[in-house]
Amino acid sequence: MEIAGKWTEPAIRVLMMPRDTNAHGTIFGGVILSYIDQAGAIEARRQGLKMMVTISMDKVVFHAPVFVGDLVSFWTETLKIGNTSITTKVVVEAIRLGDPGQKVLVTEAQVVYVNMGEDRKPAAIRPVANAYSE
Amino acid sequence: MEIAGKWTEPAIRVLMMPRDTNAHGTIFGGVILSYIDQAGAIEARRQGLKMMVTISMDKVVFHAPVFVGDLVSFWTETLKIGNTSITTKVVVEAIRLGDPGQKVLVTEAQVVYVNMGEDRKPAAIRPVANAYSE
Amino acid sequence: MEIAGKWTEPAIRVLMMPRDTNAHGTIFGGVILSYIDQAGAIEARRQGLKMMVTISMDKVVFHAPVFVGDLVSFWTETLKIGNTSITTKVVVEAIRLGDPGQKVLVTEAQVVYVNMGEDRKPAAIRPVANAYSE
Amino acid sequence: MEIAGKWTEPAIRVLMMPRDTNAHGTIFGGVILSYIDQAGAIEARRQGLKMMVTISMDKVVFHAPVFVGDLVSFWTETLKIGNTSITTKVVVEAIRLGDPGQKVLVTEAQVVYVNMGEDRKPAAIRPVANAYSE
Amino acid sequence: MEIAGKWTEPAIRVLMMPRDTNAHGTIFGGVILSYIDQAGAIEARRQGLKMMVTISMDKVVFHAPVFVGDLVSFWTETLKIGNTSITTKVVVEAIRLGDPGQKVLVTEAQVVYVNMGEDRKPAAIRPVANAYSE
Amino acid sequence: MEIAGKWTEPAIRVLMMPRDTNAHGTIFGGVILSYIDQAGAIEARRQGLKMMVTISMDKVVFHAPVFVGDLVSFWTETLKIGNTSITTKVVVEAIRLGDPGQKVLVTEAQVVYVNMGEDRKPAAIRPVANAYSE
Repeated sequence: MEIAGKWTEPAIRVLMMPRDTNAHGTIFGGVILSYIDQAGAIEARRQGLKMMVTISMDKVVFHAPVFVGDLVSFWTETLKIGNTSITTKVVVEAIRLGDPGQKVLVTEAQVVYVNMGEDRKPAAIRPVANAYSE
Repeated sequence: MEIAGKWTEPAIRVLMMPRDTNAHGTIFGGVILSYIDQAGAIEARRQGLKMMVTISMDKVVFHAPVFVGDLVSFWTETLKIGNTSITTKVVVEAIRLGDPGQKVLVTEAQVVYVNMGEDRKPAAIRPVANAYSE
Repeated sequence: MEIAGKWTEPAIRVLMMPRDTNAHGTIFGGVILSYIDQAGAIEARRQGLKMMVTISMDKVVFHAPVFVGDLVSFWTETLKIGNTSITTKVVVEAIRLGDPGQKVLVTEAQVVYVNMGEDRKPAAIRPVANAYSE
Repeated sequence: MEIAGKWTEPAIRVLMMPRDTNAHGTIFGGVILSYIDQAGAIEARRQGLKMMVTISMDKVVFHAPVFVGDLVSFWTETLKIGNTSITTKVVVEAIRLGDPGQKVLVTEAQVVYVNMGEDRKPAAIRPVANAYSE
Repeated sequence: MEIAGKWTEPAIRVLMMPRDTNAHGTIFGGVILSYIDQAGAIEARRQGLKMMVTISMDKVVFHAPVFVGDLVSFWTETLKIGNTSITTKVVVEAIRLGDPGQKVLVTEAQVVYVNMGEDRKPAAIRPVANAYSE
Repeated sequence: MEIAGKWTEPAIRVLMMPRDTNAHGTIFGGVILSYIDQAGAIEARRQGLKMMVTISMDKVVFHAPVFVGDLVSFWTETLKIGNTSITTKVVVEAIRLGDPGQKVLVTEAQVVYVNMGEDRKPAAIRPVANAYSE
């Protein structure tokens, strides 16, 4: 199936708040993993999936920490659309509070989702006419 | 002072979750107002403010409701930079879960922030060389 | 329609916690805006509205910041009851952690709600016999 | 030590939201217990305590359940002020979403707090001149 | 009715995060009370209850404070199974961040739950064949 | 370096609440990923790490969904202790609300943490004498 064009905007962009910190005052990795899962799902939705479940996330390597006050963006693209599943890529980038001109690569992930039918079983993915690619 | 170019990306983009709903199952207005305040602050930061306080928000009219599953974007621009304050505009737009091709204007707001110095008093805004305008 | 008597108690009163802070350690404006919306809705409910949506919030000016540990009260009254909408006023006041005798005016707002029928369309507001005015 | 006059307003008043529910869709008891602890601490603060720890909560009996949309008030009074500790009483009352004229007694509790000095050890409670009793 | 064997594992175990703190930076008592209620409910479920409400919590005494970074365990056992209610005991223990070998008793509680039928009225408790006792 | 004996108790065990659901009413994958990161960190702490950062998470495959009301356990063990890093394994298991006798394998993960010194740089891991292995 044809993949809808890459989106030039982030799927998610959020400001890191004190409530997202761990005991050492930095943003804990789980918060980022949680948004990666949401971002991939948004990408899958752009391609026509409605109800879906996360099936797998490939190895994730954290290249840089995230701090309170960082503006964190989750950029997505679709790598592959199978019969009932879709493989998305999520790139995480932080803009530091004190240095707005610097963009830091935090991590990248590949997340796979399966399309679910009304019966909660895997269902064929149908092409979507109007993905928001720009 | 010169205003850094308009950003072609949303300052914030989030997926509405069940935990954001009110007693009737729709997203309650306060959640949107809360993100508007964050989005305007991100815009102010792009223009060089570091520590700031929200001073005012102009009248806000809600044109459409927001539902669980909506992807909500907060687009910003800077209308005016004064000596110690900055006036930002935030436009809120929703992409419905079941209809990815439709973008709905939720509301618009003007939020004013005052730049604070180390002494927690209003401080002159200095131009920033490297706003992330693209 | 007649307006039920002014309530001598706050519609909402909450203690500000560390999880409500922004990157600079103060309570961020969005938290206050979010409670203003809730408080106005409680006032509208006192007047007989059951299901409602927030339609507008007039200009809000923040006179004083709010800190962790502050006890913040949201006082409400109804300014006008129209055919399908209601205009409420919300006054926000903080009692400082370290100075219980001092009450600080944080901000004021006017919030308008529309009464919704079962069909999710604007519906006429009916008088309520037993508003909790005292 | 003399007890500052009883407060005619609730120490805390909050609207119950869907995020406070348990797996069966009702507000889970822990949410109420958590606010009781906060309310008693606010009462203790009215009497002059600044930094304190919760030492005990007497037996709590729940007389009625709490639902999403209920407006829940936590009324407090001080029963006893000892040398370093204070005994507060918290009464929890709900106003139902669909029946604003009905006030339901949810539960009552007695919570004891110990006043802490700068050294994080129990410290004598000093009288406060300006408790907000009205 | 026979009580299913004591569980050798904690009903709940959580890491205390900065978002659980009060204005003084320590974990506030309400967070612990909230988990106690959940833990007792998990114990009641082990014994066969499905839908239940919390009816009472006996006097709770806090022996030690809880700090950010502590790993807090809620150990449970069933003291008594009546016709429609069940009495559980919850013991709360903290492992300090900086001293993993030390286990600190925080508090103990007895929580009583009533079994509810489909009609939301108290219903007889039926024995369960397969409680997870190990 | 020698690895402290395997822990016979879960590092984390939590009850899934409505606030953890996605737009379709199931627990979203990110919540689970977030707890996996916490659980691995608790395991690393057992082995003597104090301040640490998450460096990588190996491929994660979700074998079964998680629902509101599930009791979810995160079992951990240490696979390898290097000079400055530690490799942990986290196994996620759910006990269903309606079927306490059934334990469902949700997913497994390997998470690697780096030990940080006071200077926020990788630091050698020192053996710990008193890991809580039972």
